[in-house]
Amino acid sequence: MNLNSTHQISHDRKRPTTPTEGIQLMADLFDCQGDVNLLQHLEPLRHACLHAVQSASLTIVGERFHQFEPAGVTGVILLAESHVAIHTWPEQRFVSLDIYVCHFSADNTDKAEQLLQHLIQTFDSRQTNVHRQTRGRPTRIHPAI
Amino acid sequence: MNLNSTHQISHDRKRPTTPTEGIQLMADLFDCQGDVNLLQHLEPLRHACLHAVQSASLTIVGERFHQFEPAGVTGVILLAESHVAIHTWPEQRFVSLDIYVCHFSADNTDKAEQLLQHLIQTFDSRQTNVHRQTRGRPTRIHPAI
Repeated sequence: MNLNSTHQISHDRKRPTTPTEGIQLMADLFDCQGDVNLLQHLEPLRHACLHAVQSASLTIVGERFHQFEPAGVTGVILLAESHVAIHTWPEQRFVSLDIYVCHFSADNTDKAEQLLQHLIQTFDSRQTNVHRQTRGRPTRIHPAI
Repeated sequence: MNLNSTHQISHDRKRPTTPTEGIQLMADLFDCQGDVNLLQHLEPLRHACLHAVQSASLTIVGERFHQFEPAGVTGVILLAESHVAIHTWPEQRFVSLDIYVCHFSADNTDKAEQLLQHLIQTFDSRQTNVHRQTRGRPTRIHPAI
């Protein structure tokens, strides 16, 4: 289990300054040693993701999952706070995960981090690479030309 | 129109080295001066996004959009190549856009960039901030602990 890996990357946690501000966690989960059914089949993956999102107290407003043949799944859960997206490569034991929350009514960073840790545990990823990106903050705008 | 803004950020375009590799374009589109109906209402936004994805020759395998009240939309298009996610803040004239393509069968970077430019034009964003993130390349893995 590599739960602490995400803490090796510092990130800037500030109160939002604009209504559009949010944070996106992009996690590449390598060497997933959990139940391979989660990576192969739609329903087990969908169930695990919905459970994790509900456990993090995020607000589901829609979902769509797609089964690839012979195995592998792409899925998205739409949130009131933004979205969660997941793609699995069972033969590579790899999961690509996106968690994007806006801070429109509150700073949802802690919920996003909780969800990330939950899913790393679920897939039992032994090697995790996480990037964090602030979204919607107009501090690096390029002037119109 | 700020079409050239995305070209001000250089990015590393390499042939994929693993089956899991891909690229994610995260675009914050400020000051969108196009038709505000696109930002307010589900059907116009959905139609514009599906059209743009088809124009970029990406492969749609599913979609889900959600209408917020009184206005604003969250939507995702699932691709064989990964996904497109979009969130609108009509009152802020802001659109958050994610385009994620894996390179499983071919390098899809050009298609992703074409789609990004198409959508910047569609929303007529005057101030655009784009981040590009390589996904699924196990070069910065943290060892398991």
